[in-house]
Amino acid sequence: MPQLYHYPFCPFSRRIRLALGEYGASFELIEEEPWAKRADFMILNPTGEIPVLVDNDGSIAAGIYAVSEYLDELYSAASDVTLLPGSLAERAEVRRLVDWFDHHFYVAVTGNLITEKVYKRFMAPEQGGGAPDMLRVRQSMGNIAGYMQHIDWLAAERSWLAGDNISSADLCAAAHLSCIDYLGDVPWQYHENAKDWYARIKSRPSFRPILADHIRGLNPSAHYTDLDF
Amino acid sequence: MPQLYHYPFCPFSRRIRLALGEYGASFELIEEEPWAKRADFMILNPTGEIPVLVDNDGSIAAGIYAVSEYLDELYSAASDVTLLPGSLAERAEVRRLVDWFDHHFYVAVTGNLITEKVYKRFMAPEQGGGAPDMLRVRQSMGNIAGYMQHIDWLAAERSWLAGDNISSADLCAAAHLSCIDYLGDVPWQYHENAKDWYARIKSRPSFRPILADHIRGLNPSAHYTDLDF
Repeated sequence: MPQLYHYPFCPFSRRIRLALGEYGASFELIEEEPWAKRADFMILNPTGEIPVLVDNDGSIAAGIYAVSEYLDELYSAASDVTLLPGSLAERAEVRRLVDWFDHHFYVAVTGNLITEKVYKRFMAPEQGGGAPDMLRVRQSMGNIAGYMQHIDWLAAERSWLAGDNISSADLCAAAHLSCIDYLGDVPWQYHENAKDWYARIKSRPSFRPILADHIRGLNPSAHYTDLDF
Repeated sequence: MPQLYHYPFCPFSRRIRLALGEYGASFELIEEEPWAKRADFMILNPTGEIPVLVDNDGSIAAGIYAVSEYLDELYSAASDVTLLPGSLAERAEVRRLVDWFDHHFYVAVTGNLITEKVYKRFMAPEQGGGAPDMLRVRQSMGNIAGYMQHIDWLAAERSWLAGDNISSADLCAAAHLSCIDYLGDVPWQYHENAKDWYARIKSRPSFRPILADHIRGLNPSAHYTDLDF
């Protein structure tokens, strides 16, 4: 069975777990603390980043870009399911949005919030662990509104974020948002279209394991698992 | 003819110019200053990032991830040329390295050097232009050695950086290095294998337009265009 090295509150890992769910794939989850930089794990991915996929034949895909494209090549050839649907141009739109969520939204919002509020709880002091930097938290909270407005606009204009069909763009956005929704940090009340879109994706069977994730010592927001929040 | 919005000293744009050269494609170059965030350009890519490709039928691919995958899908279907060669696992290795160069090497080295030494020469003061921040330049120069060691190791172990064949990983690394080689900032003398690999890729016809680029008021390093440097 393919093995996925992941961390429950890493948005990149969550996207791959959702993708494997959508493809209907069976896989083994191995939890890897992204800050630990374990020597054995660095052999699989020299940057120490998760997710990393080790396939049945020993093939390795390391990092979100390699893993997501590897899986879509594999499963779209073997089944009817693709998370990069449509024409060349439609696939380019999916990838544009994925890039935006993984490299802009992550840097401005989700990366800071999960590092400060989640990762630092479990990191040793010499790894940078400790109390959250509240200035960084406040700055990230201030950055959310602009991103939510754009997600809201996409959700209002299109069936799914990148077009007519569900795609990696939806899983990517939902993976990032789900991490900070656990923390209660998504201002859903101002973004009804985004909320409706998220309720739809949250109701899919692939999302169930994500909703069952639990941070030791930190309970989820009241609506985290509520499908009609 | 497809149009590529690019900037001559943007490493992401350079990779796409190299790729188009390898595919044997004809295209029109439109220079776009990445810091200008022109309103008309933001319609093509709301993040304002280059490169952006506008194909003959009006299809748009925006940002390095979308453009590079779009072009490989298009040209590998139409010709024998692919920059993502080999098996699923070999393609994953190409993408792992591309990710490393575009998101680690760029953040630690190339992005800072071209911003401080090139972009800020042409940016207006209100855009952040002016004299380079020498602390940032020195920090980036200090980061180069580790990356060069790894490139040197890859070049010693493999025919090309990701394996037996030339791939996007080679174009990506060469695109980043070429920007800072113009500035004379690559310590080639300590990395012979990397130097031999770069001499090979620099000799390809696709590289000629890159070597002809010129920054107004700033001459290239003595060996920038020398194929036997």
